[in-house]
Amino acid sequence: MNSPADSHSVGIVTPQVAHFDTPLHLACGHDLPTYDLVYETYGELNDKHSNAILVCHALSGHAHAAGYHSVDDKKPGWWDECIGPGKPIDTNNFFVVSLNNLGGCHGSTGPSSVNPATGKPWGPDFPPLRARDWVNSQARLADYLGIDCWAAVIGGSLGGMQAMRWALEYPQRIRHCIVIAAAMKLSAQNLAFNEVARQAILSDPEYAGGHYQERNTIPAQGLALARMVGHITYLSDNAMASKFGRDLHSGSLEQGDEGSAEFQVQSYLRYQGSQFSGSFDANTYILMTRALDYFDLAREYNDDPVAAFGHTLCSFLVISFSTDWRFSPQRSREIVDALIAAGRPVSYAEIEADEGHDAFLLPIPRYVNVLSAYMLRVGAHC
Amino acid sequence: MNSPADSHSVGIVTPQVAHFDTPLHLACGHDLPTYDLVYETYGELNDKHSNAILVCHALSGHAHAAGYHSVDDKKPGWWDECIGPGKPIDTNNFFVVSLNNLGGCHGSTGPSSVNPATGKPWGPDFPPLRARDWVNSQARLADYLGIDCWAAVIGGSLGGMQAMRWALEYPQRIRHCIVIAAAMKLSAQNLAFNEVARQAILSDPEYAGGHYQERNTIPAQGLALARMVGHITYLSDNAMASKFGRDLHSGSLEQGDEGSAEFQVQSYLRYQGSQFSGSFDANTYILMTRALDYFDLAREYNDDPVAAFGHTLCSFLVISFSTDWRFSPQRSREIVDALIAAGRPVSYAEIEADEGHDAFLLPIPRYVNVLSAYMLRVGAHC
Repeated sequence: MNSPADSHSVGIVTPQVAHFDTPLHLACGHDLPTYDLVYETYGELNDKHSNAILVCHALSGHAHAAGYHSVDDKKPGWWDECIGPGKPIDTNNFFVVSLNNLGGCHGSTGPSSVNPATGKPWGPDFPPLRARDWVNSQARLADYLGIDCWAAVIGGSLGGMQAMRWALEYPQRIRHCIVIAAAMKLSAQNLAFNEVARQAILSDPEYAGGHYQERNTIPAQGLALARMVGHITYLSDNAMASKFGRDLHSGSLEQGDEGSAEFQVQSYLRYQGSQFSGSFDANTYILMTRALDYFDLAREYNDDPVAAFGHTLCSFLVISFSTDWRFSPQRSREIVDALIAAGRPVSYAEIEADEGHDAFLLPIPRYVNVLSAYMLRVGAHC
Repeated sequence: MNSPADSHSVGIVTPQVAHFDTPLHLACGHDLPTYDLVYETYGELNDKHSNAILVCHALSGHAHAAGYHSVDDKKPGWWDECIGPGKPIDTNNFFVVSLNNLGGCHGSTGPSSVNPATGKPWGPDFPPLRARDWVNSQARLADYLGIDCWAAVIGGSLGGMQAMRWALEYPQRIRHCIVIAAAMKLSAQNLAFNEVARQAILSDPEYAGGHYQERNTIPAQGLALARMVGHITYLSDNAMASKFGRDLHSGSLEQGDEGSAEFQVQSYLRYQGSQFSGSFDANTYILMTRALDYFDLAREYNDDPVAAFGHTLCSFLVISFSTDWRFSPQRSREIVDALIAAGRPVSYAEIEADEGHDAFLLPIPRYVNVLSAYMLRVGAHC
């Protein structure tokens, strides 16, 4: 039973805002003069401030990772399966911090925020961000919360990339790095899908060069298309087959029914697309996919991931899912191989799961067990 | 050296038009009163009219499968690698017929043709087509050309589906059925990609409900997006990686270059998209993808492909490619398994190839050898 009253739920949580006045120097060379980060916390920070866990979100995530915003809230946070009392990231032991990344559209400063220099929304002029910018802003949040060193930084997909960047940029401030369904850089195919998604948004006339907010409109069609493309890559072929097969949503395939017959998978995708376009900002989507595209763990280490990981000091857990074709197990094994070659302690689990990339959000028993066991180890040294 | 003068080229070819005045009854229940089919032929029909080969095209194909349209023509037909003197489909032995399918946009009657009832382009009102409609119209073309029985019907992808439909609908009129990189029906993932492609077109304001032709415009952006999505599924992850990797088309990934740096795969896709949108009709694209979606070999055989193939009388060659993830080898093995269970003679080759679905158009040595050997067998009984 999912409800705030469930003993395994963190219950009702309230997002908080941290305001920063010290300019943040960004990878693009610009400074962001001031910014807000919206975050939530679950559990209690211990006296030594040694039990803090940072959860980094993926492409379209936000700060609300666990619990409920009100008693009437029907849907818990996006990673509620794994965060809570008695859950793998056990809030009886850990103080969990989850934020909306800079550039996001769920409370933190981003393209839909007002640019203090113009008094208008930043829109497409919001500075481009890299994973390292997020990591730097998260380090500021850690300072703000009095956390010198994270017991662990955890993330799936783009979140896993941030966790790895943490290990490289702040080796003294992270004891464990948990990288789930991620990769050291995008493949050409990954880049291609992101390009289609962005082109869908950019070519929507309502996008208006990114200044749709001033016109009180949104590029709903483009954003919906972008989400549809993304969604296909989150699910495995098998998962789609078992979820929908060729079942019809309406009509029949007999002659004469053209136009009325509709496959379930098609109406499902359209629904997902339209839901997303009503709740996500197009400029943020472009910014986030670009950050993904440009992420390249070892670029400034002469393209040598062993040299890159040679700078880290933490232990690693790497997890992949058998049918994930967005970031396949092979991409995780590349991370593991580089870590081993760099002499870093690393555990690796490849989880059999039919659900594709989306598996990282689901309570798959072996996955939950692996994560729980590792988190016990993390907790033992807090 | 590719040129019309090459001794392995069919040389200069001239498309021809067959006009049909007898209404064609379509699967949707409507009749198409009159229609044209544009076709090309290569080689000579023998006295017994027993050496004719029908080549069926895939989603965006046309009649021009081999040779050149003029001495200045830089690019040969789409399957020139396999059709010509001394090539697998040897025009010294065979009379090859290649047509643009009904509903197409390369000469045959389709959505961009004038609807005689209104004097305006058919546009979105062109009747929906099924693979069986193409097969029926191709049978009319066979009558017109004096061909009672094809020595072989050959096709890749959607073309392979037509070849199978031929074997079911006209068992007496086909001696060999060659099915390359195809499937008995689309998977949910296949359906999903087609849906995204269609939504990209339908949501382009220039599509104007399909009546863009009367407005002298085209839904160029939507069609380009549709092609980009399709193109990703034609190439394997490996093929994309070796073709582009993460190489840059322009700019650098250093800080400050946002917007100017561009990955090659992205500009390549954009180029492919814009080329396609200038040469293909959007309503045809929608019609063709719907025909793909609705193709289901065994639907009226109680979903039993063994029962379906039990109606066939020809021999089969089935070919798949190892990295094809649009119609994977598994989909071809399903065809082969059903044929074996139905007691039909079938040869099967799974070709190791890095190029994904597109491999079926490429001169991969083992593929060419398999096809050549099988065609010798076809020729031995002409």
